[in-house]
Amino acid sequence: MDKPQPPLRKRSIQERRTWWTKTVAPDQQQAEFWTQTGFGLNLADTLVENAVGWMPTPLGIVSGLVVNDHSYEVPLATEEPSVIAAANFAASLTARAGGFRAGASPPLMKAQVFLESTKNDAENALELERSALETAIRSSLQSLESRGGGLRNLSWSRLKEPALLTVTIDVDVRDAMGANKLNTLAEFLSPLLEAITQGRKLMAILSNEGSRRTAWSEVCLPFSLVARGTIDGQEMARRVALASQLAQHDPARAVTHNKGVMNGISALALATANDTRAIEAAAHHYASRTGKYQGLSHWECGGEFLKGRLEIPTMFAAVGGTVGVHPTAQMALSLLEKPTAPELGMIAASLGLAQNLAALLALTGEGIQRGHMSLHDRRSQQPGTSP
Amino acid sequence: MDKPQPPLRKRSIQERRTWWTKTVAPDQQQAEFWTQTGFGLNLADTLVENAVGWMPTPLGIVSGLVVNDHSYEVPLATEEPSVIAAANFAASLTARAGGFRAGASPPLMKAQVFLESTKNDAENALELERSALETAIRSSLQSLESRGGGLRNLSWSRLKEPALLTVTIDVDVRDAMGANKLNTLAEFLSPLLEAITQGRKLMAILSNEGSRRTAWSEVCLPFSLVARGTIDGQEMARRVALASQLAQHDPARAVTHNKGVMNGISALALATANDTRAIEAAAHHYASRTGKYQGLSHWECGGEFLKGRLEIPTMFAAVGGTVGVHPTAQMALSLLEKPTAPELGMIAASLGLAQNLAALLALTGEGIQRGHMSLHDRRSQQPGTSP
Repeated sequence: MDKPQPPLRKRSIQERRTWWTKTVAPDQQQAEFWTQTGFGLNLADTLVENAVGWMPTPLGIVSGLVVNDHSYEVPLATEEPSVIAAANFAASLTARAGGFRAGASPPLMKAQVFLESTKNDAENALELERSALETAIRSSLQSLESRGGGLRNLSWSRLKEPALLTVTIDVDVRDAMGANKLNTLAEFLSPLLEAITQGRKLMAILSNEGSRRTAWSEVCLPFSLVARGTIDGQEMARRVALASQLAQHDPARAVTHNKGVMNGISALALATANDTRAIEAAAHHYASRTGKYQGLSHWECGGEFLKGRLEIPTMFAAVGGTVGVHPTAQMALSLLEKPTAPELGMIAASLGLAQNLAALLALTGEGIQRGHMSLHDRRSQQPGTSP
Repeated sequence: MDKPQPPLRKRSIQERRTWWTKTVAPDQQQAEFWTQTGFGLNLADTLVENAVGWMPTPLGIVSGLVVNDHSYEVPLATEEPSVIAAANFAASLTARAGGFRAGASPPLMKAQVFLESTKNDAENALELERSALETAIRSSLQSLESRGGGLRNLSWSRLKEPALLTVTIDVDVRDAMGANKLNTLAEFLSPLLEAITQGRKLMAILSNEGSRRTAWSEVCLPFSLVARGTIDGQEMARRVALASQLAQHDPARAVTHNKGVMNGISALALATANDTRAIEAAAHHYASRTGKYQGLSHWECGGEFLKGRLEIPTMFAAVGGTVGVHPTAQMALSLLEKPTAPELGMIAASLGLAQNLAALLALTGEGIQRGHMSLHDRRSQQPGTSP
């Protein structure tokens, strides 16, 4: 009889790898890949719990994405064929029209403290203590304040159902994602808020609602640049604008329109070890903010030009957390010339708009399958891959 | 003077790797990691364009997630500390109450063909040709039809603004994600639809709207199981139910509530080389389908029990595409005992609900930072990582 094994979490990563191999029973190719991916195990073990190794995602380059007159080499990690090829196509097309103009809001994140059973005049009590609260917040954010970030707004409101008082703290988090900082701040503040309102904290946590931490990007393309095959540029521009209008009115289309935008942005997030779930959640919530889920980008014709614009929440970190310790993420940021978090947001928004342009040109021109095929025809020539 | 270099896409992956090293100027630790991640380059080069190598994400195990009386070992790929620890905590807690009950819809995906300038009685013309259209669709989906999948519904409707006729085709895609199949089908059908309606195709593509491809999971926990520290089980259950109600009413809270649900689901998608963007887009659109962005899970107290339920679109593939050729993804599916796509959806929904439970217990109990710390205290003992 086998000796009973300790639970996985009590074993070393090497013991867990042995368990994996025994349980999975890999074939020869898989076993070889498993051995090859058995590097840097101390790091994997430090980053997550019950680590067994690494999941490698293909890493490729979008070459020459021009944003604010600067040409970037952008690393993307994605399992999806043609995402990088499509972005390269759009990068090259837009570069011929001078590239993207982009901007970004300050990197504002918000924390929420929800309090129940507060006294009736809790808002008055908070107002009376506002200055003490702000001082407490600033002192706990000292290092951020010294780098030009820190407290930007403190407010409160009552929710009727369920009956809760919400205290909201807006913080400029500079180049961090901000999650840890804001969670710590919200919990630090909770006892003080409980004392002032005579209420009880239900929870204290950051919000991934990102409407105040956005980047935007615009591009203006002469009709001549967007002609495709036998379809002239003016007609192609009309079709792209119509497709954009469609994504404003049909939610089932808007989901896929936005999925295409995120193909690039989420792949940049993965390549830099950013939090893809936070970036995805903020983007899609933003798409639904009017009460109807809509396309995030807008294209229209004006004069002899096709004009596009995308504004999107971009909760990218340039420092801290896993971003700060993952060697590939660090090299990816070096390739991008070590941008600030808002600069990374501008690159992301431009990349998203590029990806969207490539998709709409392919869809309304020759069709997405033929487009994909021509971009990716070598794939079908490789053995062992699906067409 | 240096000889001008050919564009990246014309160089070999080895030449691109040399370019990366020259451009990035890695430090010693990064250079070593870069060398270690230089395996399987033929595969990376086949999967994406302009490949330079791999982005490795830490891979860990959620042990003993019980779904429909079966105990799973679930591989997650994530850069976020404590996601796997939290899921393990919830898996162990729920297993003591019999685990999750889960189910799934058939794997239905939909394609949309948008037509402009159709004749006035285009709908009548389509109805007259319905049977010919259905025959054409079935013949193009022969292999799916022979495996019990295939055409499930064919319908059309008019959009007023912009003026377009939308033809919608619902297909049971069995164990594939379905994107390639549905795009090919929609484009194949377009000339026929143009001829019948005398219209012109604007675009033909799958939709990531996932309300007909969902999985659901439920769990029922005696109060005694959810007691935390000095807070008894009934009070903890009340708090979790209140937090769930809050996520129904405050969109800024709902985004983060759902981000937590996706922490597990998206990490399972990454570990199996599934399309995280499709899964994220469908989930967050689904969260906004009532016209208000809301929490995806629901918790309530009944009798002596805390009861939870999550229903969520789950566009997981179990075969095909990168899922079918990536060795780690293949091993991850072996570890899950080679589930069908709907089974993978049920595991994902249960994992999402487990992750949500762990987050809500931590948030409304001891607080998320203290919760994270206790789950993950060894991280701060490691050199070179952020606390």
